[in-house]
Amino acid sequence: MSRFFSEKYKKLVPYTPGEQPKILNLTKLNTNECPFPPSEKALQYAREHTRPMNLYSDIEGVGVREALATLYGLRPENLLLGNGSDEILNFAFMAFCDDDHPAAFPDISYGFYPVFANLNRVPYTEIPLREDFRAAPEDYYGLGKTIFLANPNAPTGIALSSREVEEIVKRNPDSVVVIDEAYVDFGGESCIPLIEKYENLLVVQTFSKSRSMAGARLGFAAGSAELIRDLGTIKFSTNPYNVNSMTQALGLGVLLDEERTRANCRTVMENRAYTAQALECLGFAVLPSAANFLFVRSDRIGGGELYQKLRARAVLVRHFDKERIKDYNRITVGTREQMDILLKNIREILEETP
Amino acid sequence: MSRFFSEKYKKLVPYTPGEQPKILNLTKLNTNECPFPPSEKALQYAREHTRPMNLYSDIEGVGVREALATLYGLRPENLLLGNGSDEILNFAFMAFCDDDHPAAFPDISYGFYPVFANLNRVPYTEIPLREDFRAAPEDYYGLGKTIFLANPNAPTGIALSSREVEEIVKRNPDSVVVIDEAYVDFGGESCIPLIEKYENLLVVQTFSKSRSMAGARLGFAAGSAELIRDLGTIKFSTNPYNVNSMTQALGLGVLLDEERTRANCRTVMENRAYTAQALECLGFAVLPSAANFLFVRSDRIGGGELYQKLRARAVLVRHFDKERIKDYNRITVGTREQMDILLKNIREILEETP
Repeated sequence: MSRFFSEKYKKLVPYTPGEQPKILNLTKLNTNECPFPPSEKALQYAREHTRPMNLYSDIEGVGVREALATLYGLRPENLLLGNGSDEILNFAFMAFCDDDHPAAFPDISYGFYPVFANLNRVPYTEIPLREDFRAAPEDYYGLGKTIFLANPNAPTGIALSSREVEEIVKRNPDSVVVIDEAYVDFGGESCIPLIEKYENLLVVQTFSKSRSMAGARLGFAAGSAELIRDLGTIKFSTNPYNVNSMTQALGLGVLLDEERTRANCRTVMENRAYTAQALECLGFAVLPSAANFLFVRSDRIGGGELYQKLRARAVLVRHFDKERIKDYNRITVGTREQMDILLKNIREILEETP
Repeated sequence: MSRFFSEKYKKLVPYTPGEQPKILNLTKLNTNECPFPPSEKALQYAREHTRPMNLYSDIEGVGVREALATLYGLRPENLLLGNGSDEILNFAFMAFCDDDHPAAFPDISYGFYPVFANLNRVPYTEIPLREDFRAAPEDYYGLGKTIFLANPNAPTGIALSSREVEEIVKRNPDSVVVIDEAYVDFGGESCIPLIEKYENLLVVQTFSKSRSMAGARLGFAAGSAELIRDLGTIKFSTNPYNVNSMTQALGLGVLLDEERTRANCRTVMENRAYTAQALECLGFAVLPSAANFLFVRSDRIGGGELYQKLRARAVLVRHFDKERIKDYNRITVGTREQMDILLKNIREILEETP
């Protein structure tokens, strides 16, 4: 740290992203990427429709917002694009949280929420998930705080139903409820249809998971025109040209091939069921996942040890040091081939374990 | 504004970007873009080296940082990449300004500085440019504030020499001095060689102007490893994957074709001299520009009126309402052909003006 760094950030602990090591023939199952690249149709569209790079990108992201509006039955003014959904989540912490509107989120959830809260010096409460790692909707009723809920939750994969979320939104009429639907396309129920009904509901999604665009950085928020305008005020005060031209063109290309997205999600869900069953046969406890990852625990080997041993075999999964979940591993669901490599290595590791 | 928007931002006035109207056959000279696209060599490199879009982008931007380090004689730890330089400037306001370290910048400069200051609730002082729109270095000596200087300045185009900047940096040893070199490649002197000497100097550059990548969003900061680490703490607490894979590949491609960048800059500088001379012949006052734009004023027609009349003729320049510069227009220097269209239209407008 330099001697010039502002006091207000001196204790800030940044988010720890999943590692990107340079390991040969790595089976990378640690950052919940989609195992399939964008379709040739989507890539071709992007090649043909990216505006010349020497000109600024469309500051309003009109094309993508119109396509999303059509897909979800919204109007473009209900949508804001971001350089990934992390940027939008930070905007939401900026816009809708302060000393009078503290944040609240589950104790076990996306690790970036407390970082955003600390960055923006927003007080926050972590609401413990129940014993079975479920978020109990009633724990969020009438909180008087800005609520952030990943649904499906990460790293557990467990989803609330759209009706359960609606009840939370309804019972917090004077607070914004942010539903982070990064993983919703793998079996969750989106709350986007509810935004016409509730002015306090903001839904955030990303193109990084189901839409194969983690490397292109595209996320969006859906909400009432007024909430979206507030986020726009933040965006135009930080980085107006936040989404580059290629990403806008590719995003549009991917939306034009929605069929492929759905097919990819189905494949991932099939591979998830296959892997969950195989892991259960090996004695693992597997939480019921509606996401493109599994959160699993074995009585025979600790989470940290399994992570290390898999890593030594060029299979990368995610392990969190946090007390409540340190026995678990989060495993991204990839291709069937990747899953078989994972399972083969886990079997061998268990055989070696006394 | 929604009723949920935080009090702290309710008075925030966002930055006003140059407009992007849908006008047929528009001669667009309002946002200082490079008139030339990236070279075929650079684009080809990007096509061949962009990592698959379904995988996250390189969070450290290693390739681009190594190439920049080689180009500027630095080490990669002296460099941080941003999603455009606006993002990095905001990081610098976050990291190095607070109530005890207010910001200072010229009264006439990049319009985003006061927005960043307000966004971060940082007190700031605007230091008036002298009568001739020059920044007097001595006005910045021993200020005890975090200084932001665009060099060359915008919208004036006037540059300080590297020695003048060094004197400012030297005489503020306990404050960070941020030199925003967005336009430096068109005839200014970069202060990057000084960063090894001064731990309080941060230089920010962009690929949007000389490097033809406005639509791809790439900027960087150069400074001591400690300053860069502080900015990294902010980046990893807001948006770690801030620079997408395609932009990293294209940035590297453009750096591998530095010759083309230099040639483009020379062409723009020739067109600038040509346009300045032609405008002076038409009676305009033209400030001495070291940037890819001209800041000009005519006694025969007001800045607002000329802007409007050019716009009606599908020629877009920039006009600012601010009192001190409302008689001026900022005109991006484009191709020779674009400059001839501009000059022809200005001549016709002046002829129509009584």
